[in-house]
Amino acid sequence: MRLPRLFLSLILPLTPLLAFSAKVDTLDVPSAAMKRNLRAAVVLPESYAKSKASYPVLYLLHGGGGQFSDWLKQTPDKMLLHKLADQYNLIIVTPEGDRLGGYLDSPVQKDNLFETYIAKEVVEKIDNTYRTIRDRKGRVITGLSMGGHGAMYLATRHPELYCAAGTMSGVMDLNYKTWRIDPNFETQIKPGFARILGTLGSTPDYYAANSVVNMVDRIKANGQKLIIDCGVDDFLIEPNRELHRRLVYNRIDHDYTERPGGHTWDYWQNSLPYHVLFFTNILKANGAVVQ
Amino acid sequence: MRLPRLFLSLILPLTPLLAFSAKVDTLDVPSAAMKRNLRAAVVLPESYAKSKASYPVLYLLHGGGGQFSDWLKQTPDKMLLHKLADQYNLIIVTPEGDRLGGYLDSPVQKDNLFETYIAKEVVEKIDNTYRTIRDRKGRVITGLSMGGHGAMYLATRHPELYCAAGTMSGVMDLNYKTWRIDPNFETQIKPGFARILGTLGSTPDYYAANSVVNMVDRIKANGQKLIIDCGVDDFLIEPNRELHRRLVYNRIDHDYTERPGGHTWDYWQNSLPYHVLFFTNILKANGAVVQ
Amino acid sequence: MRLPRLFLSLILPLTPLLAFSAKVDTLDVPSAAMKRNLRAAVVLPESYAKSKASYPVLYLLHGGGGQFSDWLKQTPDKMLLHKLADQYNLIIVTPEGDRLGGYLDSPVQKDNLFETYIAKEVVEKIDNTYRTIRDRKGRVITGLSMGGHGAMYLATRHPELYCAAGTMSGVMDLNYKTWRIDPNFETQIKPGFARILGTLGSTPDYYAANSVVNMVDRIKANGQKLIIDCGVDDFLIEPNRELHRRLVYNRIDHDYTERPGGHTWDYWQNSLPYHVLFFTNILKANGAVVQ
Amino acid sequence: MRLPRLFLSLILPLTPLLAFSAKVDTLDVPSAAMKRNLRAAVVLPESYAKSKASYPVLYLLHGGGGQFSDWLKQTPDKMLLHKLADQYNLIIVTPEGDRLGGYLDSPVQKDNLFETYIAKEVVEKIDNTYRTIRDRKGRVITGLSMGGHGAMYLATRHPELYCAAGTMSGVMDLNYKTWRIDPNFETQIKPGFARILGTLGSTPDYYAANSVVNMVDRIKANGQKLIIDCGVDDFLIEPNRELHRRLVYNRIDHDYTERPGGHTWDYWQNSLPYHVLFFTNILKANGAVVQ
Repeated sequence: MRLPRLFLSLILPLTPLLAFSAKVDTLDVPSAAMKRNLRAAVVLPESYAKSKASYPVLYLLHGGGGQFSDWLKQTPDKMLLHKLADQYNLIIVTPEGDRLGGYLDSPVQKDNLFETYIAKEVVEKIDNTYRTIRDRKGRVITGLSMGGHGAMYLATRHPELYCAAGTMSGVMDLNYKTWRIDPNFETQIKPGFARILGTLGSTPDYYAANSVVNMVDRIKANGQKLIIDCGVDDFLIEPNRELHRRLVYNRIDHDYTERPGGHTWDYWQNSLPYHVLFFTNILKANGAVVQ
Repeated sequence: MRLPRLFLSLILPLTPLLAFSAKVDTLDVPSAAMKRNLRAAVVLPESYAKSKASYPVLYLLHGGGGQFSDWLKQTPDKMLLHKLADQYNLIIVTPEGDRLGGYLDSPVQKDNLFETYIAKEVVEKIDNTYRTIRDRKGRVITGLSMGGHGAMYLATRHPELYCAAGTMSGVMDLNYKTWRIDPNFETQIKPGFARILGTLGSTPDYYAANSVVNMVDRIKANGQKLIIDCGVDDFLIEPNRELHRRLVYNRIDHDYTERPGGHTWDYWQNSLPYHVLFFTNILKANGAVVQ
Repeated sequence: MRLPRLFLSLILPLTPLLAFSAKVDTLDVPSAAMKRNLRAAVVLPESYAKSKASYPVLYLLHGGGGQFSDWLKQTPDKMLLHKLADQYNLIIVTPEGDRLGGYLDSPVQKDNLFETYIAKEVVEKIDNTYRTIRDRKGRVITGLSMGGHGAMYLATRHPELYCAAGTMSGVMDLNYKTWRIDPNFETQIKPGFARILGTLGSTPDYYAANSVVNMVDRIKANGQKLIIDCGVDDFLIEPNRELHRRLVYNRIDHDYTERPGGHTWDYWQNSLPYHVLFFTNILKANGAVVQ
Repeated sequence: MRLPRLFLSLILPLTPLLAFSAKVDTLDVPSAAMKRNLRAAVVLPESYAKSKASYPVLYLLHGGGGQFSDWLKQTPDKMLLHKLADQYNLIIVTPEGDRLGGYLDSPVQKDNLFETYIAKEVVEKIDNTYRTIRDRKGRVITGLSMGGHGAMYLATRHPELYCAAGTMSGVMDLNYKTWRIDPNFETQIKPGFARILGTLGSTPDYYAANSVVNMVDRIKANGQKLIIDCGVDDFLIEPNRELHRRLVYNRIDHDYTERPGGHTWDYWQNSLPYHVLFFTNILKANGAVVQ
């Protein structure tokens, strides 16, 4: 396969006084399927430039209403991804999702194909641009809120691509009637969901069919490693508890954590290092780490 | 109190080829209260010798039937504590508990005073022997099984000593009738508990009075940071779930995790790094870390 | 104690066309302790007048903001108590509680002594006025909302009086911060609670000390028969679930039911016959029924 | 359809001294589908003989290893069904199920067609033999253990037949790996299940496909009234809790009760009157009762 032309540019100036010297590329990752120009940030650990090794890749998805650069710009500690990339020697990729963050090939909006984009086009582009471990054993995925949905959803539907998946404060049930929200917020999010999943309550029920909470059989068959967490004050805590209970009931291995806090960047900044620790253990067991 | 003479000796030869060069002392820490000679292992990070800084200390308790050296000898990776001490720049102390692991001043067996020993004598000895942060803000405690009970119990009763506590697969309820065990195992453990807590079912009920699951009000008043985990196949999972529910119900902040696995060293080796990550965040927020 | 003079009068005219001919007295039951005139309704089964037998008594408590006649006037079916008294051959007494429904001897408002009133003065008056089984084996108590609190609270504190207790949609935790209510409602109920229990958050914590959810040890020691239910849409469902979990965790026998519905008379009208069926089985086993 | 010949006979002699004079027929109800002779007991309330009214019918299923006469012979009180039929004025039918109690048309054992039998042949026979309300509004079904599975399963698959269903100590998950049983008991029941559902773990998974716990979407669509209970010491309590949680999560109305006790006739004798009370309220609302 011919390598697509590279567009690498520095998204964030590195603070020279810091010990962390991970490098961040902003990479054009166009979607042929959607005929759209989209970008991703790629955090390369300091060791990458000096090494000839192939690196494991962590895909890290943003939430609804967000964009690819969120994980670099919204965390209280702006160097969080740099530090984690350096400390654990892995590449972190933050791709662009749909504005709502559906991360699926919409059955309704025909040019909304973010499952194809993230799981096929982005992975190919990253694997063709960087020295990566081009195998599920070196590829993991997580995300926050709608990005938690995206990570679990894509990993469950593409077990050949990812050996492990995570979710923080994730939308484990797309049926927003299961969320603890007030009517105003519901009114606000309704059109976005209708755009990609049709009207809630229609037949066929695309909300149910695409919700992680209903994919337990597939999750069991896949046997991937899973890390799930949510804040006890999060409006999404109940669907997360429901998923945990269904996994326990079906004896499906997973890490499940409840922590203080709600749907905030403080929560996600705190949560991400636990996910990276979790993934690193798996990557090590897979022989997919750079020493 | 007169300080007993120091006996420092190397407990484990360091493997020269490893990058981790944390040093392990085996320290005599006699108990004046119990008139007994006891020892503790002290893991000093590599940086300690070259530094003049005061270090935070993690107290790490063994389980029932165990001893102070367990955490160095029983983990599949024998360098686990070395790595964590080096990576996070903290001192790890593994003191000796009672054979059963009660970690309390027995109301029945008058010379069994492990609350006094661990929370007073060991802390004083460590603070007088090493460059430590001699304050609750730099002192954390965790443990496995009966050591999880010990860590939570001692932290709850001595909030002036520890800013945070953890438990892995912990005995959150000393009433062994709440455990998922077979009658043979119950018969086996019964005499040990009777020795330090009297017969189960007597009045006063020392089992209930000394169980973490019943100390929720005190935990709430203390406001310490807490990390609690247990394997879903552990015979102690239900009392851990019960504690979590009571903490949630009483809106007490804590991290709670369920993971695959049971009451095994594989579980604890996996769990400990999450505890250390958790504690490090608190120590950082307290300004109690060595850069 | 001198018995106050009897004032018996018919509170509700009986509908002549109905098969149910239970008779309802409105009885003056003054409180010597509070120096107040109060009334109770007493529903006598049809058989009572023709019989010389002693009857079991069901005490049935009203909710916060309610009064003694609620159970006769607020149920959609105004003959509900008549039917139950006739069908199960028992006397039903609906006494007057405090306006809020605390059913306790207030540690704050010195002339608010509804524990003394309901558990001593009312019981004595009823036993001295009617042919009752003057023993715990023939005495049961239940109630709705604050009356559910009252029934469980009084039965737990007076096991010598009641062999069984129930609660429908009960206030199992007086700490209203555990309820799913909006701030306006909280503001509205706050003064009433402050009047009888002091300010929430004060020391000593009268809210905690008088909440059924915290009386599990006493409940266990008593060994009374218990029936607890709540609607899944009720703002009190979580404290009811918490009580159920604590009872299960402590292996305390009880019937626990969740049903559709919220905090409404439809719910209570539906619930009461289940309570009466439950109590009748106990009364039968106690030999405390009229054939 | 030609009516099969009637064989009515008295199964149990009525105790002449009792007030309850319900009459019990033992009725031949052959299965044309299975070409087998089978029987059912039919409990007719005392009023039936003197009335010209059409009566509602309660179908009451036996458990695994049981037979049609169990509900008349195994309850401690041998007059339980007589009393309930008289008290609530309904016909109670206890049909014969498969020896295991699958109550399904086996995809494996081609002549095991108990779904067809109970939901078609028995209903037709009863409706053609007695004055019944020949409509879902007057037809309810419940059962114990495998009969609880049967009742919920058949009602869910035939909402046109039954307006309400119940289960006591029911097998809500046919996958016996979810039960709290010892290996010996598992070995014992395995062949029976294999006979009607194939080997556990095969594809397609007939155990999952036919388990009530997995039929939540259909249950939601049907909107039938449901009553579910189980003893806290029952080996089936966890799948019952799981069903309850799924119903709550999906906001599906149902009554759910946990009671003291295990898998015993004492439990079922206690439970049945609550089911009948529940059903009677529905039949009343449907206008399907005999005054």
